Amino acid sequence: MTAAHHSVVDVIRTKRDRGELTDEQIRWVLDAYVRGTVADEQVAALLMAVLLNGLDARELSTWTSAMIESGERLDLSALSRPTVDKHSTGGVGDKVSLVLAPLVASCGAAVPQLSGRGLGHTGGTLDKLESIPGWRAALTNEEIVAQLESVGCVICAAGAGLAPADRKLYALRDVTATVESIPLIAASIMSKKIAEGTAALVLDVKVGTGAFMPDRERARELARTMVGLGTAHSVETVALLTSMDTPLGRTAGNALEVREAEAVLEGGGPPDLVEVTLALAGEMLARCGIHDDPAARLADGSARATYRAMIAAQGGDPDAELPTASHVRAVPAARDGVVRRLDARAVGVAAWRLGAGRARKEDPVSPTAGVVCVRKPGEVVAAGEPVVELHTDDAATLEAALAALADAIEIGDAPAAAPLVLERVAV
Amino acid sequence: MTAAHHSVVDVIRTKRDRGELTDEQIRWVLDAYVRGTVADEQVAALLMAVLLNGLDARELSTWTSAMIESGERLDLSALSRPTVDKHSTGGVGDKVSLVLAPLVASCGAAVPQLSGRGLGHTGGTLDKLESIPGWRAALTNEEIVAQLESVGCVICAAGAGLAPADRKLYALRDVTATVESIPLIAASIMSKKIAEGTAALVLDVKVGTGAFMPDRERARELARTMVGLGTAHSVETVALLTSMDTPLGRTAGNALEVREAEAVLEGGGPPDLVEVTLALAGEMLARCGIHDDPAARLADGSARATYRAMIAAQGGDPDAELPTASHVRAVPAARDGVVRRLDARAVGVAAWRLGAGRARKEDPVSPTAGVVCVRKPGEVVAAGEPVVELHTDDAATLEAALAALADAIEIGDAPAAAPLVLERVAV
Repeated sequence: MTAAHHSVVDVIRTKRDRGELTDEQIRWVLDAYVRGTVADEQVAALLMAVLLNGLDARELSTWTSAMIESGERLDLSALSRPTVDKHSTGGVGDKVSLVLAPLVASCGAAVPQLSGRGLGHTGGTLDKLESIPGWRAALTNEEIVAQLESVGCVICAAGAGLAPADRKLYALRDVTATVESIPLIAASIMSKKIAEGTAALVLDVKVGTGAFMPDRERARELARTMVGLGTAHSVETVALLTSMDTPLGRTAGNALEVREAEAVLEGGGPPDLVEVTLALAGEMLARCGIHDDPAARLADGSARATYRAMIAAQGGDPDAELPTASHVRAVPAARDGVVRRLDARAVGVAAWRLGAGRARKEDPVSPTAGVVCVRKPGEVVAAGEPVVELHTDDAATLEAALAALADAIEIGDAPAAAPLVLERVAV
Repeated sequence: MTAAHHSVVDVIRTKRDRGELTDEQIRWVLDAYVRGTVADEQVAALLMAVLLNGLDARELSTWTSAMIESGERLDLSALSRPTVDKHSTGGVGDKVSLVLAPLVASCGAAVPQLSGRGLGHTGGTLDKLESIPGWRAALTNEEIVAQLESVGCVICAAGAGLAPADRKLYALRDVTATVESIPLIAASIMSKKIAEGTAALVLDVKVGTGAFMPDRERARELARTMVGLGTAHSVETVALLTSMDTPLGRTAGNALEVREAEAVLEGGGPPDLVEVTLALAGEMLARCGIHDDPAARLADGSARATYRAMIAAQGGDPDAELPTASHVRAVPAARDGVVRRLDARAVGVAAWRLGAGRARKEDPVSPTAGVVCVRKPGEVVAAGEPVVELHTDDAATLEAALAALADAIEIGDAPAAAPLVLERVAV
């Protein structure tokens, strides 16, 4: 204990004084933390020193390796299909995974989409799919591998065995104001994705008011950091920065988003959602050497067939009716004009307050609650016509949701142009 | 709890992002920490952010006030004598307090010297006095006040009721590499001294290899910070920066240092120790408006009489024989010449290894162990004659003590001049 005490103080002091940690120090301290021989307060001080003084590429790569090595690593090498996954840093109305995984699988890849739940104003993919009667998020490693071989894609909960250091570190960062560190965010995301066993990875780094990282410079730095980490761990990685100033598609919620994703799989759906999905699909297919046209797989129904097989394989009924909310309140336009702005964060917060999201990990979410964007930026609206609709089973939530939208809608005389895919970050 | 959770994360984030904490935030977080509603890991992250991003004068003053308010404050206002105290940041052979407190008291002041124990290579005043048979460090507040009135000085342990926040914060800083922060050091020292109720304070900030803060720039910054804090809390404060490149006097240990202090009180003793003591005594008397000549009080025996009364008042026998070590090993000079350097830190570490100091708070110390500097810098020595002597009751410690001194002694052809009192820092 005295030896450990002195070692961890040396590790903290080194980073505090802007020194470089050795690989041995990084591996030792993270292992000792997971085993419980280094205390929360010591790692909290280290995390603050890392947030303020940074980690260089070598330190971060070793840090990420140590997080991966804290748990098991899925072995997908026996699959007959090439593996490729996508990770989004999270946005409002971001139901891309629901379309993308079966779409890319229908082109011949295996997509092991191990996901998390939503927290705060951005939704979680698992929460969305759980609005489908019977669908279950928990699969064993064997079930994951079997489904990847038979269906080509799986969207399920990341098991407790993957990167357990991340779970413990994240809980500590959450209470110590050390979440907002680019190296620590990158290590958290990439350790789980690398442990999941995918050979290639496309990152969708959201930029804008509804994103975890609103600032484009910092989003680019995060993208570069993650691409570097993937490459260092032999995962072929590329990132797209995409806009998150307004919700993606027209819905933010759980069943609401599933229904919209299914519309895309049926060849329709909102054009912004289709555009981002196809851009990411193109990158994913290129990463695993598959030459196919994903737009054609949407049009010919093969992506939809793969989606239905994926839902069914996980116990869900793809034909079941999705639940709808008992209360719908329209938010009308204050004037005639063109919607210039419909703020992503405000819509996300409104959907959350209506019941679609959770404030604490252990809270349940409502399958029916959410926001429908009847008009999106660039679209014409007349005074008194609805711009958004609030959906909820709990009418008591409506006022707080309305309050969240107080400054969220701007109607003007001409549309404000905004590209969706902002830039591409590769090695 | 949720409110507290959010508040403390906001406090940490503010300091992390180089913002200024409000007075309310500082008072709230320190109070909640002492009460246990804010966790160690959260305060650890805050302390690291403070270490790296600093506290401005207002924040630090409030922080110090909050530490004082975490406990009781001695009320010395009813004393008939003016109160003045001294604090040293700690050095090797620094037995100044043993002479200074009775000396200044013999000139008419009340000196409430509430002290700590030694940790690491610098000794503690209480440990030294405990080598006197019968002497006890623990006094009640009533005993302290009564002794200040009757004798004029007290050297005793700071009670648990004074600035309890400091005790809890220091233990946390010790394991999280957040000790070396000038504002946190200043708040720790000054909160205890202000809570002790003294009206005036002279700080002896040590500079050099044996000091807690070897660098003169940083020592000056610490001195300025503490003088500012004292002034802000209506304690008339001044600081002297004094040299700690070589031990003060000829001894480092417990009984060894008591004997040397008694020699000064008898009108003798090493000149460097006398010089530093008189410089500090002059500042202390000036702070409380007493016009007396401390050198005369050493010469006429009145300081010695006060010392003997202080020892007796706390149960000690001023006539008792002090214990001596069973093993004494001489370290001889390698050549003829003048001692140019006798490194303070090395001597301190050697004394510590011989048993004079402790590695952990709960360890006992040896009354007899220590180092005697037979030759000091500037003194002539012949090859083979002893430069220092190692004293211990445990012969097994001698090798490790010798190893600490391996590069500590430099003998040349001419002395290297070095002033003792380096500079004065006042408002």
